[in-house]
Amino acid sequence: MRIAVDAMGGDFAPRAPIAGALAALRRLPETHRIQLVGQGAVIEQELAACWAEEPGAEARERSRLEVVEAPEVIGMADRPSVALRGKVNSSMVVGVRRVADGLADAFVSAGNTGAQMAASLAHLKLLPGLSRPAIGTVFPTAGAPVLVLDAGANMDCSAEELVQFARIGTVYARALLGRANPAVGLLSVGEEPEKGNLAVKDAHKRLLAAGLNFVGNVEGRDLPRGACDRGPIDVVVCDGFTGNVILKFYEGLAAMLIGRIAAAAGADAAAVGRAMADVDPDEHGGAPLLGVRGVSIIAHGKSSPRAVANAILVAVRAWESGMTAELEARLAEGAAQAAREGAA
Amino acid sequence: MRIAVDAMGGDFAPRAPIAGALAALRRLPETHRIQLVGQGAVIEQELAACWAEEPGAEARERSRLEVVEAPEVIGMADRPSVALRGKVNSSMVVGVRRVADGLADAFVSAGNTGAQMAASLAHLKLLPGLSRPAIGTVFPTAGAPVLVLDAGANMDCSAEELVQFARIGTVYARALLGRANPAVGLLSVGEEPEKGNLAVKDAHKRLLAAGLNFVGNVEGRDLPRGACDRGPIDVVVCDGFTGNVILKFYEGLAAMLIGRIAAAAGADAAAVGRAMADVDPDEHGGAPLLGVRGVSIIAHGKSSPRAVANAILVAVRAWESGMTAELEARLAEGAAQAAREGAA
Repeated sequence: MRIAVDAMGGDFAPRAPIAGALAALRRLPETHRIQLVGQGAVIEQELAACWAEEPGAEARERSRLEVVEAPEVIGMADRPSVALRGKVNSSMVVGVRRVADGLADAFVSAGNTGAQMAASLAHLKLLPGLSRPAIGTVFPTAGAPVLVLDAGANMDCSAEELVQFARIGTVYARALLGRANPAVGLLSVGEEPEKGNLAVKDAHKRLLAAGLNFVGNVEGRDLPRGACDRGPIDVVVCDGFTGNVILKFYEGLAAMLIGRIAAAAGADAAAVGRAMADVDPDEHGGAPLLGVRGVSIIAHGKSSPRAVANAILVAVRAWESGMTAELEARLAEGAAQAAREGAA
Repeated sequence: MRIAVDAMGGDFAPRAPIAGALAALRRLPETHRIQLVGQGAVIEQELAACWAEEPGAEARERSRLEVVEAPEVIGMADRPSVALRGKVNSSMVVGVRRVADGLADAFVSAGNTGAQMAASLAHLKLLPGLSRPAIGTVFPTAGAPVLVLDAGANMDCSAEELVQFARIGTVYARALLGRANPAVGLLSVGEEPEKGNLAVKDAHKRLLAAGLNFVGNVEGRDLPRGACDRGPIDVVVCDGFTGNVILKFYEGLAAMLIGRIAAAAGADAAAVGRAMADVDPDEHGGAPLLGVRGVSIIAHGKSSPRAVANAILVAVRAWESGMTAELEARLAEGAAQAAREGAA
């Protein structure tokens, strides 16, 4: 497998993506190779610095790395449209295009999320049956992890888009989380169908008829326990505004509470933090942009080398699971069923 | 001061509100009296049970208690409209009307939130200059507590309503949290003004011109630390859907993490929980319905006696602070300023 990594993307680039790529290589089989996309001279300098700290590493790793020249850099504050008009020779656009052109099997970036979405939509294209892609994020819970989508790709969502997220999430939870019949919950403010904002109330009705394992509305309190009163939850559907707010709230709250609770318990915060590694966002690393034809993994702008390495492992699992083809097949099935029902 | 308490409201009524009222009486000066509103026979029976456990309490407390007969009960699953047409002799409606009629200074209920909002709007009335009331909830943070509003009264909010919440929150933070010049943040998915959903992006522009101490967008991660990169935050404004989701998420996550972290630290979860009492929702007890002419405190449906007692203390602070009159004066000032600017 060939993974293209945006060497210039993220608050700590080029160090974090390049060190993260090397860390991932050390955890992946020999058959996995990484393409570092960006300014060649910068990348070589950073590689040299990383290898200087690990005697013998260069000899083992050089042959599994390729440097792909991309002279331009999209900044974190650039508008997404710069990926379409403007910096078309940026590491972001060149990296996504390698997947589109079959030169790489997946792309990972900690750079500008809006630009990555725009480039992925333009070059990888949406799967038929979808109007928007979604960012799928795995939340650690007291039970099994739960997939939350959308975690930030779409700010204002229609009811139909929420239903599409439920379909996408079902395939992801089956392919990547190993859930046989994923239970899908709709995030709302009460379990009753009439609770929620306008889009959620409408989506609730549509989800009842969507042929999914829809368990009804779930509330904010259900997410940390990975279950609602009707049983475990595998997928939680929400608009990208709400999803992004709770994702970042989770990160901030976990860090705050670990520090305070460790102090209250008379324990060392770092030791407690290590025992709680699964609630550390770096541990999850990357969130796939779901619904495009190809694997495009969005890592946090503040990604550490460890977070980038984990994002690369997410890319490997996404590609090896055949998730994209599976999603396309399921969406086609859904469309055929809708057509039959329309004709009947 | 006279506080009307809904004796029939909440999942654990009548025990929780009645035991909570007695607990509050024991913490309040002699001059504070409580009116228990509900079915007289049920209330007397519960009072007798509570007093049986505390020898001598009846003699001290009976004179500070009044039982106000209200034969009907609004259930947790009743539609809000039942408060307007239908159960007008319910404890909820009778309790709110006592405030409207000047027979009580505040009302506290752990009952049906929608019904409490409907009754409060109908009988207490909105203050001039507002189109909706908001539920204000105090979130514990690593720094000083932060007021979040709306926490669940309004599911779909316009930009103008978000600005109203900012005005309401500013008065509350000054009157009840003692903040001299409250810093108001707008909850979004990034600090840049162009980040957010449609209502948030529009509200950002309006807030820049609202004459408040608006510090810009804040993210989910800023809430637990009570600060953004520009400094401390006193008030966070959001729609009631997002606010309710994060409030319940906070409750669930705190409980989950306290258990897990205590285990990781080899400590007793109950002991850690006691040391973390400020993140316990029971400790905050009640959230005022802000923007109506009178004090109406919404307690959690699952309120324990301790939570009800704390909600009563919130009612006392809200009334003693003169918050409602202060809010009315500030809204009138804002309207006068807008009129002058319109005329200029």
